[in-house]
This record gives sequence, C-alpha cells and structure tokens, in this order.
Amino acid sequence: MKQQNIQTKTFENGLTLIVEPMDDVQSAAVSLLVPAGSAFDRQGQNGSASVLCEWIPRGAGDRDSKQLSAALDNLGVQHSESVGIVHLTFTGASLAEKLPQALPLYADMILRPWLPEDQFEAARSGVEQSLMAIEDEPRQKIILELRRRCFDAPWGLPAEGTLADLEALSPQSLRAHYAECFRPDAAIFGIAGNVDFNEVSDLVGSLFGGWTRKPSPALATSPGGPSRDHITLDSTQTHIGIAYDSVPYRDPDYYAAWAAVSVLSGGMSSRLFTEVRERRGLCYSVQASLSSLRDEARVLCYAGTMAERAQETLDVTVRELKRLGKGIGEDELERCKARAKSALVMQQESTIARSSSIARDWYHLNRVTTLVEVRDKIDALSVKDVLDYVHAHPAADFTILTIGPQPLEEPREVS
Amino acid sequence: MKQQNIQTKTFENGLTLIVEPMDDVQSAAVSLLVPAGSAFDRQGQNGSASVLCEWIPRGAGDRDSKQLSAALDNLGVQHSESVGIVHLTFTGASLAEKLPQALPLYADMILRPWLPEDQFEAARSGVEQSLMAIEDEPRQKIILELRRRCFDAPWGLPAEGTLADLEALSPQSLRAHYAECFRPDAAIFGIAGNVDFNEVSDLVGSLFGGWTRKPSPALATSPGGPSRDHITLDSTQTHIGIAYDSVPYRDPDYYAAWAAVSVLSGGMSSRLFTEVRERRGLCYSVQASLSSLRDEARVLCYAGTMAERAQETLDVTVRELKRLGKGIGEDELERCKARAKSALVMQQESTIARSSSIARDWYHLNRVTTLVEVRDKIDALSVKDVLDYVHAHPAADFTILTIGPQPLEEPREVS
Repeated sequence: MKQQNIQTKTFENGLTLIVEPMDDVQSAAVSLLVPAGSAFDRQGQNGSASVLCEWIPRGAGDRDSKQLSAALDNLGVQHSESVGIVHLTFTGASLAEKLPQALPLYADMILRPWLPEDQFEAARSGVEQSLMAIEDEPRQKIILELRRRCFDAPWGLPAEGTLADLEALSPQSLRAHYAECFRPDAAIFGIAGNVDFNEVSDLVGSLFGGWTRKPSPALATSPGGPSRDHITLDSTQTHIGIAYDSVPYRDPDYYAAWAAVSVLSGGMSSRLFTEVRERRGLCYSVQASLSSLRDEARVLCYAGTMAERAQETLDVTVRELKRLGKGIGEDELERCKARAKSALVMQQESTIARSSSIARDWYHLNRVTTLVEVRDKIDALSVKDVLDYVHAHPAADFTILTIGPQPLEEPREVS
Repeated sequence: MKQQNIQTKTFENGLTLIVEPMDDVQSAAVSLLVPAGSAFDRQGQNGSASVLCEWIPRGAGDRDSKQLSAALDNLGVQHSESVGIVHLTFTGASLAEKLPQALPLYADMILRPWLPEDQFEAARSGVEQSLMAIEDEPRQKIILELRRRCFDAPWGLPAEGTLADLEALSPQSLRAHYAECFRPDAAIFGIAGNVDFNEVSDLVGSLFGGWTRKPSPALATSPGGPSRDHITLDSTQTHIGIAYDSVPYRDPDYYAAWAAVSVLSGGMSSRLFTEVRERRGLCYSVQASLSSLRDEARVLCYAGTMAERAQETLDVTVRELKRLGKGIGEDELERCKARAKSALVMQQESTIARSSSIARDWYHLNRVTTLVEVRDKIDALSVKDVLDYVHAHPAADFTILTIGPQPLEEPREVS
C-alpha cells in the first residue's frame, strides 16, 4: 500500500478542501459536495434539488448554457452533476494541467449560476421524464421505493420527487432552494491527482473565498413505512426488496457490519450468490449492500426472479440473512478480507475514486481515513467481532416490498 | 503521454499474449478472449455460448464450483465472465503479486472445466431468467432488438438466445460447443499491470502450451431486418432506436467516423444532447455510439421519451443525424479532440482498461495501437476529413425500431 499524503484546509467561510496528491498519474479529479440534496426539498416541493441540478449547468458566470458545456469539453473535463439525499455532487476529471482552467468554471456554477427563466421548463421536464422512465425500470424502482419505506422522510424520499410536486415548482421556488442551501459551511471539496496542495489551496481560496456562510436549513421529518407492501406490475418477473437495520459508516462497528454483508454478498463465493442464484438456480440477480446515511444505515437486498419462483426466492433469501447469526467460517471472512484489500489497491490507482472517497470520508467522519488505516481495520477483524455485531444487530424487523403480478406471503421457514 | 512498452508473443498453438507492463501501479488485470461467442451458436441453439459461460465457472481442474469461486476470492481477484458476439471474455484484476496464483485458475477454467451435469439446469435457468428480465428493461431490450434488425444473423442475434432455443439445449450440445470453439488459434490474452513480460510469458506458455489447435467453425449467416418495426408495450414512455452504416475499427477512416459520432454525442456540448435534450427538453436520454464488428459497423442511436413527445423526438434526432453533412465547426471538432485525449490519459491509468484495450486491438487489427498513435491520429483529423467521411457514409437507410404504446410515423422534416 503506497504512502498517502492527504492534506486538508478549512477556509474561513467553512468550506473544507481535502487534497490527495498522486505523483504517478497525469490526471486529476474533483468531487465537490454542496449541502443542497433532496433532503432539503421543502414539503410539497420534492424534486427541487433534482431540477436545480439540471438547471445550474445551463449558464453561469460569463457563459451561457452552450458556452459553459463547450468550455468544459474544451478542457477535456469528464464531468457530471448528481443529486444525493444530502448533497448535490459536482464531479470532474481531466488532465491535471487543466485543473487551473477548470476550477473557475466550477466556481461559476456554484456561485454565479444564471438559473435562466427560459431554461426552467426544459430542466423540470428532464426530471419529469426521468421519473416516468423509472416506471419502465422495476429494478431501479424497487430500490427507490424500498428506501422510501425503510427510512424516514426526507431521508428515504426519491430525489426525483413526484409528478404533482414537480408541477408545483417554479423558478422562484428553486432560486429560494439555491439561496438557502448553497452555502460553504458544510461544503466539501475533494481533489486527487497530480496536483500540489499549496497551489490548489490558493486557487480554491481565491475562487471560493467570497462565498458567504448561511444558517443550516431545517428539515421536516416524517415516518417511512409500511414495512410490508406490494406494487402490482403486469410482468412475468417479480422484483423483491428487503431491508433491515445496520450501523452507519461513522460507527465503530462499521467494519464488522461491512464484513457481515460481505459474507452474504461479496464476490461469487458469497452466500446469497451461491445459495440463491447458483445452487438453486432461483433467480437471475441477487445482492445485498450497506446503505449508510450519516446517522443511520440499512442493509438493502434485491432479488429478481420469475414470478413462479418468487416465494421460494424470498424464503431462501430471508433464511440466508438469518442464518448469518448461526456462524461464519474463518475461510469466509478471509475471502472477504482478500477481496477488500485488492479493491483498496485498485481504488488507490484511480483519481476519481480517491477524490470522491476523501470527500465522503470528511462528510461522515470529519476526517479522512487512509487506505492503510482501512486495511488495518479490515485485517484486525475476527469472526467473533463479526458475530458479535450480527448478534447485536440481527437480520430482523424486515421491510419487504415486491413488484410483480402477485403479492407474496410472509417468508416461510425453509430447510 | 507516457511511453508504453507493449510486447507480444504468439505461441506455437496460435494463442497470442499481449503484455503492457505498468511500473507505477500495484495491480494487474487480465482479459482473455476465447473465440466461442454467440455467433458460433448452432442454428436452433441460440443461447449456447451464454449458458456455457454460466456453466464453465461451476468447477474446473481440482476444484468444484464453490472451491473455484473461493480460490479466486481468496486471491482478491475481481473477475467476470461475459458473452460477446465473437468471444467469451474472461476478465480479472488483482494485486500484481497474485497473478502467478490466479493464472492457473484461468487455465483450469479454459482447459479443464468440469461442465457438471448437476449444474446444467441452474446454468440454463440463469440465462432464461436474464432473457425474461430483459422484457422488464425496455432500454436494454431496444438495443438488442435494434442490433438484430440492423446486422445480419448471427452478428445481430442477442447472446441470450430465445426461450425455445434454450429449451433445446442439453449438456451434450454445450459440450460440443465447448469442444468445437475453445481453441487457442484465435484466442487472445491481454495482461496489463505491474508485471514482467518474460515471467508472464513463461507462465502462460507453461499453462496454456498444451492447448491444441482446431479448425475454425463455420458460421451460418442470414439476413437481418426489417428496417422499420414496432414492439407494443403498455407504457407512458416510448423508446426509439435508430441505426445506420458506419465503418469498422480496422478501417482507415475509423477515426473520422468516430469524430462524426462524437460531434453528435460526445459530451454535454454535443449536438444530440444540446438540441434534443437540453434545448427542447424532449427526452430524458439520447445518445449515439459506434458499434464495430471486425468487418462492419453501425451507428446505434437511442432516445427515451414520453409517448406524446416521441414523434417530435424521432423527427429532431433524424434531422440532427442528417444535418452533420451540412457542416461541422472547427470548435466542435476541437472539443471532441480534447475530450478524447483526456480520456486516453485516464485509460492509461487503469490496468483493467489497458488489458481489454490491447486484447481488443489485436482482434481487430492484429497489432496494438499505442496511446501516442491514437492521440496522433486524433490530432491529425481536420474538419474536411470528417466531412469527407460523412459525405461518403451519410446518415441514411435507417433501421428504426420503437417500443411503446404506439408506432410512430416516418421521420418528418422539422425546422
């Protein structure tokens, strides 16, 4: 594992910059998290952050929509803007030597977007169409709808909002969302690649130093649920979603929680894959993953199968989830460790992966974990650690959602 | 652009090894192309290659299915096996130091698969379920069905086959496919990462040297089409697929063809994106890409939109495709070049990207193009070169397929 030399600086306005210089590469990647994600959509206006995300790149600073896209393309910046629950994320990657020209374009988008009236309808329409397209993609839809049921609002709400809410948005309401949420105090800028910390820091300071602090907006919460639900779809397939509690990334037990899910669903030799997919040929896709907010987390499982095999797939999947508490082999844990350590090395070689990882770490932990630290934590895990975690956080109190021709019965005991 | 030191060796049995040593990384990636893809499925047995691809990892050499998965996971190998038209592709990435232990597992899978009777049904069922799942994924389905119509069989046939054909497969028929197609003469092994050519070459020679040559299997071809078609789906969305002729990767005009598609659909400032998606807010997704077989190629376009905007989306998309011949701006071409050169540098930093790129080059060209060569070819392109290409290969004779509630009319002139 290579030595990492990660440096951070929090500017007077609260913006935090995290830089990981990587001498062996020629590229650089940026990941800028702005605390304006969908959780901050006002009630009755879900979808605001998503429409704003489509609207912001349509002109900023001295450039109209086309000029801004052209300027980024001219620099060879591979960029995307995405909406998360907490953040709008602006990512970009290019040759490191282009960074000094690319960062001012990001400052324009963040600080001086035009939000032009004549592009508002096209931006809203883009989100409306994404929302309707999800209706044609049950694999995507089931995860969104499962999140809505297993997390409280606003944490579980789909970022795309609803058609009714989108209809209620206006240029004024989105400008209010921008004015309230685009603030440096909780913004995080991760940069990784062939860069010098001092140069980047000076540049970011001069570009973003004038961004002024604002109070943190309030969030209105309401309960999720129900814990059992079915959405009827005329199809030969049934899509099954199962969720249960876990611990978030900042929790001391996180790596034990990660290992537990990894025994279930990491690699081809994991239990769900071998038991549900390979041995029984039950379904074409089965997986589980940890989904962590800052203060809470769920394990989210998905299985897709022919309708006539759906009940058995649900039964066998739930049995595997519960069986984890009965024991884990040393060999199973060792395989998870080997996979994870290999993945760490791959990640170390990607500027895009590093820039988003250091920014994410800062959000969750207020510090950055080095890859050596992660490796050591993974190495230190024992089977007992993982089982202790599983016994303290058993697979139970499931939220179960299905999409398909028929609802299923409660999971049954299977041998 | 860093200097690349790519070395190749063709063994006596015909297997070609291509190695790109990368000193600055710790990982290594392999991409092994075996000429046993879906084009070699016998008539009435489409899906053979896909089922074989699911069946092969279920035991090989001294290891049963579970032991083989566990051995790969123990080495931290991130691997996948996939079916293409021409090749079954075995890819893997891990720490470079694990490669000497990982390669023997690949040799087992290629030369000594068990193809166990008791796992055949599960393998076939996996492909059946994938096939049925595609019915729930119209964005995926339209590209498969468009390929079927714009290429001749077997080049355009979906690798998953049909339910009827899958039913006709047997362990015997798949073992025949394996015996006929798994041959070293046209197999290509790409390896990139922190490796030494001589060591890798000795190892591959000792592991795969005993693999014996076989004659090339015959292919039965039949015409594709029709050039206009509609598949009815009860949805609020319409999915539009459009295809037309281009030139393959090995053609001297390939980079001009690439630039033409890139002006249409490379980056946010490309024509399709700005015109169809941004300016008119017509649809949630629009894109075009070059799909190249060895001897022929098509441009494949996709647009997804609400049904009531589908006709206008088709009209505007086709107008943009045709308008290319009327002129291309210097600035448009420069942006494509900048994007491409930036992407080349990113690719240079990924062992997975490099291993598959060198193997793919060998298949198409019987040589490997260095990144410097690619950069120079892109740099040398003029607007005249691209327009000459477009005039010689105009967007015309379209194959048009739609999936949605209603068929559309022929594309209409729009202003």
